[in-house]
Formats: sequence, C-alpha cells, structure tokens
Amino acid sequence: MKKWEDNIRKVVPYVPGEQPNEPEMIKLNTNENPYPPAPGVQRALETMDAGCLRLYPDPGAHDLTAELARYYGLSEDQVFVGVGSDDVLAMCFLTFFNSSNPILFPDITYSFYDVWADLFRIPYQRPMLDERFHIRKEDYFRENGGIIFPNPNAPTGVEMPLEEVEEIVRRNKDVVVIVDEAYIDFGAASALPLIKRYENLIVVQTFSKSRSMAGMRIGYAMGNPVLIKYLNDVKYSFNSYTMDQTALLLGQEAVKDEGYFRETLGRIIETREWTKEELRRLGFRFEDSKANFIFASHESCPAEELFGALRAAHIYVRYFMAPRINNHLRISIGTQQEMETLIRFLQKYLKKYEEK
Amino acid sequence: MKKWEDNIRKVVPYVPGEQPNEPEMIKLNTNENPYPPAPGVQRALETMDAGCLRLYPDPGAHDLTAELARYYGLSEDQVFVGVGSDDVLAMCFLTFFNSSNPILFPDITYSFYDVWADLFRIPYQRPMLDERFHIRKEDYFRENGGIIFPNPNAPTGVEMPLEEVEEIVRRNKDVVVIVDEAYIDFGAASALPLIKRYENLIVVQTFSKSRSMAGMRIGYAMGNPVLIKYLNDVKYSFNSYTMDQTALLLGQEAVKDEGYFRETLGRIIETREWTKEELRRLGFRFEDSKANFIFASHESCPAEELFGALRAAHIYVRYFMAPRINNHLRISIGTQQEMETLIRFLQKYLKKYEEK
Repeated sequence: MKKWEDNIRKVVPYVPGEQPNEPEMIKLNTNENPYPPAPGVQRALETMDAGCLRLYPDPGAHDLTAELARYYGLSEDQVFVGVGSDDVLAMCFLTFFNSSNPILFPDITYSFYDVWADLFRIPYQRPMLDERFHIRKEDYFRENGGIIFPNPNAPTGVEMPLEEVEEIVRRNKDVVVIVDEAYIDFGAASALPLIKRYENLIVVQTFSKSRSMAGMRIGYAMGNPVLIKYLNDVKYSFNSYTMDQTALLLGQEAVKDEGYFRETLGRIIETREWTKEELRRLGFRFEDSKANFIFASHESCPAEELFGALRAAHIYVRYFMAPRINNHLRISIGTQQEMETLIRFLQKYLKKYEEK
Repeated sequence: MKKWEDNIRKVVPYVPGEQPNEPEMIKLNTNENPYPPAPGVQRALETMDAGCLRLYPDPGAHDLTAELARYYGLSEDQVFVGVGSDDVLAMCFLTFFNSSNPILFPDITYSFYDVWADLFRIPYQRPMLDERFHIRKEDYFRENGGIIFPNPNAPTGVEMPLEEVEEIVRRNKDVVVIVDEAYIDFGAASALPLIKRYENLIVVQTFSKSRSMAGMRIGYAMGNPVLIKYLNDVKYSFNSYTMDQTALLLGQEAVKDEGYFRETLGRIIETREWTKEELRRLGFRFEDSKANFIFASHESCPAEELFGALRAAHIYVRYFMAPRINNHLRISIGTQQEMETLIRFLQKYLKKYEEK
C-alpha cells in the first residue's frame, strides 16, 4: 500500500442490486413501477428548451417544492427535496443524528441505514424484529440519539399501524424520528398528518416507486419548518445545486396528474392482492404486504434454489444472503401479465420439485 | 431551543449566489456559458422515451463514463462522474482527506472548500495568494494532509503554469493532490496528462461552464484507477443512484459534439480578449484571466459602487464582500453583444464618475 493510501477513507464497497437488461426479461428485483410516468412527463420532455440548460437550476427547487406542498396541503417551508430519497435520508442522518447516544433502527430494514451511520460515525443499535418480522414498538422506548424506520418496512412489506408510529414519536420527543415512507402509497397509512402535532417528526417519501420515476432521482422530506430549515442549511453547505432542471420540471408534471397516479396505484394493488392469493395456493408464506412487493418463503423449496431457477428463466427477483432472511424472496409487483407469467413458472417448477 | 434541537448539526447557512430572472437582464454573475448546449442535446430531449424513467438509472453511469474516457483517451476506470463538480469535489474531500495533518488550499479560492472541510471535520490551512493573486507554489511544500486548488484559480482567473502544478504534485507524493479545473477549457493547460505519471493526482472538471450545461449538474474526476475505485466505493456507500437518466443521456450528447464545443469556446475566448482590451482602456486593472470571467478592480471607482450601478441597469456581476477582494468585480463573459452593452454602460458611468 502506498503512503498516500493511508489517508483514504476505506468503506465496504456497496454492490448495487443487479440491473439486468435483456429484451424478454421480467424484472421484479428492484421494486420499480411497471407503468410509465404520467403522460405529462413525456410531453414536458418533448417541449423542454435545451437552451435553458446553460443556466444553473433554481437551488431552492421552488417550483417542485411548491407543487408538492400544494398536493399535500402543506406550506413550502415544510418540504425539502433531494436526489432520490437516498440523498434526502443521508442529509437527514447528517443533520439530525449528532448525539453520542446510539440511534435506533430495526435489524432487518433498508440496507443503507447502517452504511450512512458508519460513514458519518453515528453510533447505532438495531433492535430485532419479532419472529413474524414486525417492529416491536417497545424497543424504541429507551434512551437514544434518534430513530428511523421504514413504514411499510423493507424488505418485509409489513405496515406498522399509525397508532404505534405515533406512540414512538410521542415517547421520543427529545430526538428526531424519521419515518421512511418509500412504499406508503401502496396502501399503508402515512404519518404525514402527525407533523402538525409533533415537531420532532420527519416523513420521507420518493418518486421512485408510486410515481414511476426511479430514473429521475427525486425524493422529499416533510416536517415542521424548523427541521426543514436545518436540512436546507446542511444541504446548501454541501452542494447547493443538486436537482437538475429536468428533474425539477418532470417532477412537477408527475405530481400534477392525480388521476393517473390513482389509476396506476389501483392496478398495482389489485395485481398484488391477486399475486398473494396465487402464492398462498402454491405454498408460499408471507406477512401481509402493503408495499409494491411481497417478501415470501416457500414451505418446502429453499429460496436460493427458487431464485436461481427464476433467474435462469429470465425472471429476476431479489434474494438477500443475510441472517434470518436467507430463505425469503422479495418479489416486486409487475404488470398483471408479468405476475401471471411468474405464477405459471412457479406452478410448473414447484410441481416438479414436489415430485422429486 | 427545544431538546431535540441539541443533536442537530448547525452549519453557517450558505446563501447561494443571486439567480435573478428578468427578461431584459444581462446575467454575468455565475460564470454560465452564454451559448446553448450542443444541438444533439435538444434532439436527445425530444426523442427520449419517458417510459424508461420508471427504471433506476445505471448506477455505474457506464455510457457517460465511457464517452468521457473516449474523449480524453483514458480507460473507463479512470473516470468518475457526479452531480456537478461540487458533488465530485465533496466526495473527493470525504474520500481522500482523512489525515490529522491539515489540508492546504489558497486563502482566496473557491468558496466551498472550507465549507466541506468544516462539514467533514477536516483540518485545513490557507496559504495566502501573493499580492498579485498568484498561488505561491512554495507554500505547498510543507507537511500536509492533502492539497486542493483550482486552475485557473477562482475568482481570480489566474492560471498556474503546468510546470508549477507538476512540482506541487511531485513534492507531495504522500498525499492526494486535487486540481479543480472547472475553467480549464477556456485556454489554460490541463494537468490531465500528468495522471499517467503521478498516481496521487486527481483532476476534476465540469459540464457547467465550457459545455453549457450548468442546469444538468454533471462533473467528473479523472485519475489512476486505484483513486477512482476508492471514490466509487465511498459514493456507492452514500447514494448509489445519483445521476438521473436525463443527465446520463444529455451528457453523452454534449461530449460527442467536438466541433460545437470548439466553436463556442473560441467565441467566448475572443469576446474575453476583446473585453480585456476595453476594460483596460476604461481604467480597470486585473491579472490576466484564462477563465470565462475577468476579476477586475477600477483605478478610481470603488467596486461596490460599480456593482450597485450595474445592478440598477439590470447587468448582474459578482461582488464578494470579503477581505482582500472587496474592491473587485467578477465579470462573466457573455455573448459579444452582452459585453458590448456592458462596456457602453461602463463608458458612460465612469465618464460621469470622473467628472464628479
């Protein structure tokens, strides 16, 4: 190792999830939305004047912030936008988690939380989910430096009832509690109405799932204006121009089309419920999911085997080789047709498996 | 102050430069390019399929990285892209500056360096530019934890000769040296050829100035594959999907059109040299600039007064109320027509001023 390498920050290299790109594949591995963004997004692309791109974007992202505020019935100073919810969450960690007490998040949850905590040298503890993969609210009633959890949780899809979310927020008024609602629009109850009553609450959402715009990297945080101002101060000190002009413009168009949003959500939820039925019939077990994915294990066939078999058939799902969850598959909800193809494949495969 | 506010990171809120938006204004305050991006950028916008936006972008940004590698005659593993050079530079600070020795950068330079150092708790020292605003290379020959400087420097526009850059890199082989070349394409000599010989050198450039794409937020770092891998590891651990699909696509188009690039650069350089002549004639003093701006003070009229007068005439330039440079204006190079309007205004204003 060279002398100059001594000073370099060493991190465990993160390996991003597989992004296969085959014409006939069925991609159910990264919880993307199977439907395109709202039609206004395409129109905005086609009519955008590239000449404007020579200018810096609005660092305050006012038009997009205003559109989100309007949609959620908030004021503009209650909304913060960033480069996907990963950027927003990382800024939240950096801004709100500066205690010497450990922050708390579940042992099984979104895989970036411990990475950010390590990166920013934030101490943390990870209370275990119960054996049914539910968060035990009591684990979050002890002294801590802040709390974060997704609702519904990832990769389990399990929703925490709003009363329990509120109890955690209420019993932790001395720290900031972040509810990461990446999957909230697929049927769970949002903590957003609570931000009026609890000034220590931040709710984070994203355009990547329910608004079909993973490719545009837009996330946002909502909370009381004091918290949002702290977030903006840290963000500006770091990089004042993060959201490019196309993201600011296309994001607005996606929010404006409430009808399309409701329609595609409805279709995904319908397909999810159909898929649950079929998976149960095939001998899969899972907690009820309120997200756009199902986290399931089969009563006899090992998840890793199924993962490999699906992959060989160009059906990509997600498998985590991690303690407690290494016999589960996380299956994103695609179009009805894609899920029918998946189920047909599983029917055949499991029939042969049982006959062995 | 509430108890939960105790744990919040407090930073000095950064106030982004003025982004006025008036139909008839002349905007010479943020070093934007007066010409639109290459025509292929507009075509790419118009023909892009919004349907793809439902998918995550390529986290490795391979197509854009490959296009840049091709352009500069590098291999792909020598190029790292990020959300504007601010993102790239911040990742460089986080990755490369982890020593207990102070890093070194000039007292007068890009205003984000000390902000990032403070944010990441990196110790630093700021050697003074000489009285002509030149970097004294000898100041960088002492023990340190890393070095960064822009070439040409900002906001002075002064170029450091390549031999001096090389001497600094060669005499600091135990640390990483970052040369921030945001303005390099406007006529200064790049340190890029040195990355073959010095494995401790990182060169950072941007699409915001010479490629007319400030609105798209694209920056990049070039260096030996070991340094680039460390950068990618830190970046992935932080946020693996930062570059949205439009940035990845439009960035490629901008790089492809070498002819347009050379043509618009030529025009800006010509206008800059014309502007230098005119400013000299009007009694302005400045070091020779190799950037797309001129950093000038007038022999009799105070900069702050001129700044206000220009502003009242809807001509926006940049004034820094900071020690040693508070009698200077930083004037971006606009179109020839814009600069002629500026010069005519100054002729009239200074005539009246001298008569007083």
